[in-house]
Amino acid sequence: MADSPNCDLKSLSPLQLFEKVTEQGEKVRALKAGKAPKDEIDASVRMLLSLKLSYKTATGQDYQAGLPPRDLALINNGTTKEEDEDFVDPWTVQTSNAKGVDYDKLIVRFGSSKIDTDLINRIERATGQKPHRFLRRGIFFSHRDMDQILDAYENKKSFYLYTGRGPSSQAMHVGHLIPFIFTKWLQEVFDVPLVIQLTDDEKYLWKDLTTEKAYEYAKENAKDIIACGFDVNKTFIFSDLDYLGTSTGFYKNIVKVQKHVTFNQVKGIFGFTDSDCIGKISFPAIQAAPSFSSSFPQIFNGKENIQCLIPCAIDQDPYFRMTRDVAPRIGQPKPALLHSVFFPALQGAQTKMSASDPNSSIFLTDTPKQIKTKINKHAFSGGRDTIEEHRKYGGNCDVDVSFMYLTFFLEDDDRLEQLKQAYTSGELLTGELKKVLIETLQPLIAAHQERRKQVTDEMVKQFMTPRKLAFEF
Amino acid sequence: MADSPNCDLKSLSPLQLFEKVTEQGEKVRALKAGKAPKDEIDASVRMLLSLKLSYKTATGQDYQAGLPPRDLALINNGTTKEEDEDFVDPWTVQTSNAKGVDYDKLIVRFGSSKIDTDLINRIERATGQKPHRFLRRGIFFSHRDMDQILDAYENKKSFYLYTGRGPSSQAMHVGHLIPFIFTKWLQEVFDVPLVIQLTDDEKYLWKDLTTEKAYEYAKENAKDIIACGFDVNKTFIFSDLDYLGTSTGFYKNIVKVQKHVTFNQVKGIFGFTDSDCIGKISFPAIQAAPSFSSSFPQIFNGKENIQCLIPCAIDQDPYFRMTRDVAPRIGQPKPALLHSVFFPALQGAQTKMSASDPNSSIFLTDTPKQIKTKINKHAFSGGRDTIEEHRKYGGNCDVDVSFMYLTFFLEDDDRLEQLKQAYTSGELLTGELKKVLIETLQPLIAAHQERRKQVTDEMVKQFMTPRKLAFEF
Repeated sequence: MADSPNCDLKSLSPLQLFEKVTEQGEKVRALKAGKAPKDEIDASVRMLLSLKLSYKTATGQDYQAGLPPRDLALINNGTTKEEDEDFVDPWTVQTSNAKGVDYDKLIVRFGSSKIDTDLINRIERATGQKPHRFLRRGIFFSHRDMDQILDAYENKKSFYLYTGRGPSSQAMHVGHLIPFIFTKWLQEVFDVPLVIQLTDDEKYLWKDLTTEKAYEYAKENAKDIIACGFDVNKTFIFSDLDYLGTSTGFYKNIVKVQKHVTFNQVKGIFGFTDSDCIGKISFPAIQAAPSFSSSFPQIFNGKENIQCLIPCAIDQDPYFRMTRDVAPRIGQPKPALLHSVFFPALQGAQTKMSASDPNSSIFLTDTPKQIKTKINKHAFSGGRDTIEEHRKYGGNCDVDVSFMYLTFFLEDDDRLEQLKQAYTSGELLTGELKKVLIETLQPLIAAHQERRKQVTDEMVKQFMTPRKLAFEF
Repeated sequence: MADSPNCDLKSLSPLQLFEKVTEQGEKVRALKAGKAPKDEIDASVRMLLSLKLSYKTATGQDYQAGLPPRDLALINNGTTKEEDEDFVDPWTVQTSNAKGVDYDKLIVRFGSSKIDTDLINRIERATGQKPHRFLRRGIFFSHRDMDQILDAYENKKSFYLYTGRGPSSQAMHVGHLIPFIFTKWLQEVFDVPLVIQLTDDEKYLWKDLTTEKAYEYAKENAKDIIACGFDVNKTFIFSDLDYLGTSTGFYKNIVKVQKHVTFNQVKGIFGFTDSDCIGKISFPAIQAAPSFSSSFPQIFNGKENIQCLIPCAIDQDPYFRMTRDVAPRIGQPKPALLHSVFFPALQGAQTKMSASDPNSSIFLTDTPKQIKTKINKHAFSGGRDTIEEHRKYGGNCDVDVSFMYLTFFLEDDDRLEQLKQAYTSGELLTGELKKVLIETLQPLIAAHQERRKQVTDEMVKQFMTPRKLAFEF
């Protein structure tokens, strides 16, 4: 968090602070309504969170819109409402908590279910495989109807996987790999078809891009996705701009979803305004439609009722809450979901890693030297200010970004636990922990780069050609 | 016009009448906002127009929203504003004038240009053909940029024609033929490609229909269109639900239009509300996209800048005003337009013929007997109440529906003029005029039915297959 606004504001009364927060809140809404550049919105949201923190420090209460401090004291009874600090939608993730978003509260707010030990054990029994580290470590932490997928699977009924990516720039960062690494594991252990949507149309609508450029990014990003090791016989990657014009089923599902969702609904879910273009307003239907197997007649032999499972970061859930709401009304099964946490920015878990902020991201194109420099320079540390203090009091893994990244990428559970113990006790210094992360990421990214080099345009074309996959339906 | 409300309302004061009109106006808006059934909206609009008429009779002034009678007298200075009585949008056409909509005023309101004698002469010179009766008689009365089409044509630069139809039921009425008859003539005299859009997706979105049913209607309607005599080598007919999934260019243009039109704009142009589904809100882009040649790469060899000319009824102009506004911003030429008047309902020119009201329409499937009965029973007459009065004062061709229909369908100018003279002078009686119309329409519709019988499913498939046409680009 930037300290400057707090310092300047210390002389203000609670009521003056209240007015500052309200004013800043309106500014954020106006910027979002006007679809201002992401940087500007982010900066403005950070300022808002910082003001709210000042307000809380001054009053001992959370800011509540419309409730100036004198009313607040009467109503609030001193309970805190930390979830007000978290902002999560498909475009922005912000929290004032250095540990990151409070995911338990997000589960309650979104109405999803926690992935608990029982469910993880059931996945292990059903697949006969050790659960992926993302499951063991709560990185995929929330779900909708995963039990139903397992019921069907145990009864030999197949399903398919759907995930995606908005190809906004040529360079993907390590955080972008999370859903693909996990989806690849799911595909392998369940042996099911996978469709991957590249929403180049979305990027065209939201960014200052031509359709040609957006499609080019889609093809470039497909290379990184293919480099994750997907099986071309079991995987269909598609660009919306391309596939919409070659599928007999996709547009029909889009228009069906579009008939059953009103502007009021997308306004409520996504915060669209009257000044948004009609492309943005109708786009949610395009992200919804691949949840229905009839969007892929070539894969599912025209069958309509193959259940879909969507692994994605939880900020994408609004699209699929909408989809699940519409599904029964158009005679389709609701897609099931597995939600991951956000991949934190180098600067800390208050926001997610963003490709549009190079300093917050480690890119899949970074050299070993760049990786080392970025981690050493930018990775937020949970360590103490001096070596002496660190040795004495130990570091804080809950807010340490290097440790967080290791939970994503270090496969060895025992080693991770040892590192945690050593860092918390003060035995391991920040520089040493960073070194472990650097040594974990460097070979991982180098290997990815090596595999990506092997991905030819011909292979991209194969993956992106609508065709039957190695499954009978 | 229904008389009942006028009778009941005679005892009311001008202010009370003013309040009645205001109240009814709100009711109409609410029905339209709630997308109530067309019948209900039409009835409600008729009531509104009738109330306005009562108000005008009582005050000698036109009703003006927000200006109660006492203020009106101060402001209005006695000028009348008849255009307030005409309501024209893609779904509803209503006027209180038995002569029909005031088209000169519509030209001013829409900002289009009148098709004057100079333009008609220029078309004759350019094509070397006698202008179609629809041009000679002001049935196609308004245009946008037709001079530009002729400039290009005279410089050996080609263009293409685009028209369409919303296939809401299996039965088309004679009014539906107007744009196709004229488009066929244009295609013949200019020898250019033609694309015909069947907006089955629109009908799915607006009506209580499945996509399958809407597509079936599209194919049935295609038969009636083909029966107008189009050349399969020069004409491509497409259903949106079908073609969107088979064209590499169509969706790209749709998304480009969708990026450049806001909800505020479609709200202003089409009256959409927050309760409308996002499909309706984004649909205007789908009717816009065929205005750009890149939507048909197979026909235009991928060329982007072939100019488009759209013959249509003027109620479709809002779609193309929007399209023309967007075109330069996506690097495309603005489509040119030729606008026709509405085809009047049998009951009178206050509204257009509507397939959803069987009594207002002569269908292309009607038998000679049905045609005769409908005209004799329902066609609004401009004749006098008794034969004696008719002989003495003559009939009024301006409001006589049979005469109006003859201006559309009777080719012989001299005969039409004779009929007009004889009817106006009282020499020709209503029954005799209706007989001429019956004898004109019966063989015309019988011939259409005969040609339609020859149209096979195979021919429909040919017309609807994306392919190169008999033109080089």
